[in-house]
Amino acid sequence: MKKSWVNGAECHSVSLSDRGLAYGDGLFETILYESGSLRLLEQHLNRLGSGANQLRLPLVIETLQDELQDFLRQACQEGLIASSGKAILKVIVSRGVGGRGYSFSESNTTPQRAVLLFDHPGYPTSYREGGIQIRICDTPVSVNPAIAGLKHLNRLDSVMARNEWNNPDIKEGLMLDERGGIIEGTMSNLFIVRDNTLCTPGLRRAGVAGVMRSYILDMANQHQVETSISDNICIEQLYEADEVFVCNSIFGIWPVTLLESKRWSVGSLTKAAQSWIRGVCGD
Amino acid sequence: MKKSWVNGAECHSVSLSDRGLAYGDGLFETILYESGSLRLLEQHLNRLGSGANQLRLPLVIETLQDELQDFLRQACQEGLIASSGKAILKVIVSRGVGGRGYSFSESNTTPQRAVLLFDHPGYPTSYREGGIQIRICDTPVSVNPAIAGLKHLNRLDSVMARNEWNNPDIKEGLMLDERGGIIEGTMSNLFIVRDNTLCTPGLRRAGVAGVMRSYILDMANQHQVETSISDNICIEQLYEADEVFVCNSIFGIWPVTLLESKRWSVGSLTKAAQSWIRGVCGD
Repeated sequence: MKKSWVNGAECHSVSLSDRGLAYGDGLFETILYESGSLRLLEQHLNRLGSGANQLRLPLVIETLQDELQDFLRQACQEGLIASSGKAILKVIVSRGVGGRGYSFSESNTTPQRAVLLFDHPGYPTSYREGGIQIRICDTPVSVNPAIAGLKHLNRLDSVMARNEWNNPDIKEGLMLDERGGIIEGTMSNLFIVRDNTLCTPGLRRAGVAGVMRSYILDMANQHQVETSISDNICIEQLYEADEVFVCNSIFGIWPVTLLESKRWSVGSLTKAAQSWIRGVCGD
Repeated sequence: MKKSWVNGAECHSVSLSDRGLAYGDGLFETILYESGSLRLLEQHLNRLGSGANQLRLPLVIETLQDELQDFLRQACQEGLIASSGKAILKVIVSRGVGGRGYSFSESNTTPQRAVLLFDHPGYPTSYREGGIQIRICDTPVSVNPAIAGLKHLNRLDSVMARNEWNNPDIKEGLMLDERGGIIEGTMSNLFIVRDNTLCTPGLRRAGVAGVMRSYILDMANQHQVETSISDNICIEQLYEADEVFVCNSIFGIWPVTLLESKRWSVGSLTKAAQSWIRGVCGD
């Protein structure tokens, strides 16, 4: 981490009494900074705002938005990011300091807004151009319709799934629910192409509704490409797909070209989707 | 919070990069201090140790155990707890500081051990003697067989369930899984009595395997009372139960006497269970 603010001031720590630590009682966003701007910022803030509403977290998005711009300006002045460079901004919003116990008082809550600056991971372009190898994780995704879709701080399922493998050739793992439906990758959303339709798993019971996933669905509609949100994409259907890719707002779209012995080539709809997002997730 | 240590030293904060905050990547215990000792300490530490193993968290329990005793001694010297009084010690163990991303390096992890001292909530004895009113929560419990039973830091389901009501007459809410099986209370485990058998929900898919729940099951076996762990206690079976109670290691056992219009009296097996635990969860 190169720099961090809490509630608008330089700060590197949170209270031990913060409910984000105690219960994962909060939300986060991971935003790409590239060529002088925060990409898909409006979408990230919209998701954060609606998540905060759902969790009854009295977050003022405008305050956070101003802070992000100030933070960024200062980081540039301090030489921590080049205006032509790339970086990652992470926002963590929690319900703030609270006493022991699950109960909270909505009117008496001061949410905590943390902004953290990280180096961009600098993924090789080969991932985007040539595709990646993935695996199927044993750790299932946590199922809870009441908080599904939110990018909340309860991510132990992704942590355990991601650490099932350490083969560096494998770049992502897919997580299934108890019923065998594929939900998402550990850090990405999944799309498959069948019959020239872009299909992605439904997220009403589990998973994170990714900003890039939504953007791709919107762009597909703009480009008259059929889309489908399906509640039962199982492993068999994955194997039978014409194309497969994963996406998130940091790396954009990575074609999936290998899963165990199954190979896919980088398909035309995958390439089309990559062209749609070029303006929001770089080069 | 009256006092806190992190890794053996007075400290009130954690790094913004702590994985406990970022992902809920850790575990906690809430331990009753009463009449000079930490109650069910061995059981709490055993659960923490086996949870840490399961999460591949290299926690040295002996270090933590020594810290707890030192912390307690200091808190007594500082007059923060009376040796004859009650208090609550909370332990939070996280995977410590890490970079961005779900991946961790087991060999390169320094877990963070936090110990926090709180006032005892001082529940009225009427709860224990006369019973409490409960409700059924709308928020379902999160289902994930890979981490079920652990007292991990991903507790947003309990947070949202607990804050569904603010009627102070209702002391606890029960959480169900998607299938309608009752799993637990927001801060407690559930027992029902039917045919002179103590039944409690199975926790292979969801829920926290409470220290007091385990203790009650052990004591029931010692007292030749039949027990049953059932994967499908639904609302109908709850209504048909002869006795109902909830338990945790802070308040012990509270008989349930009211759920909507359904009333139970404080039954004989509930009273027996209360007598079994008297030595570990006081008066």
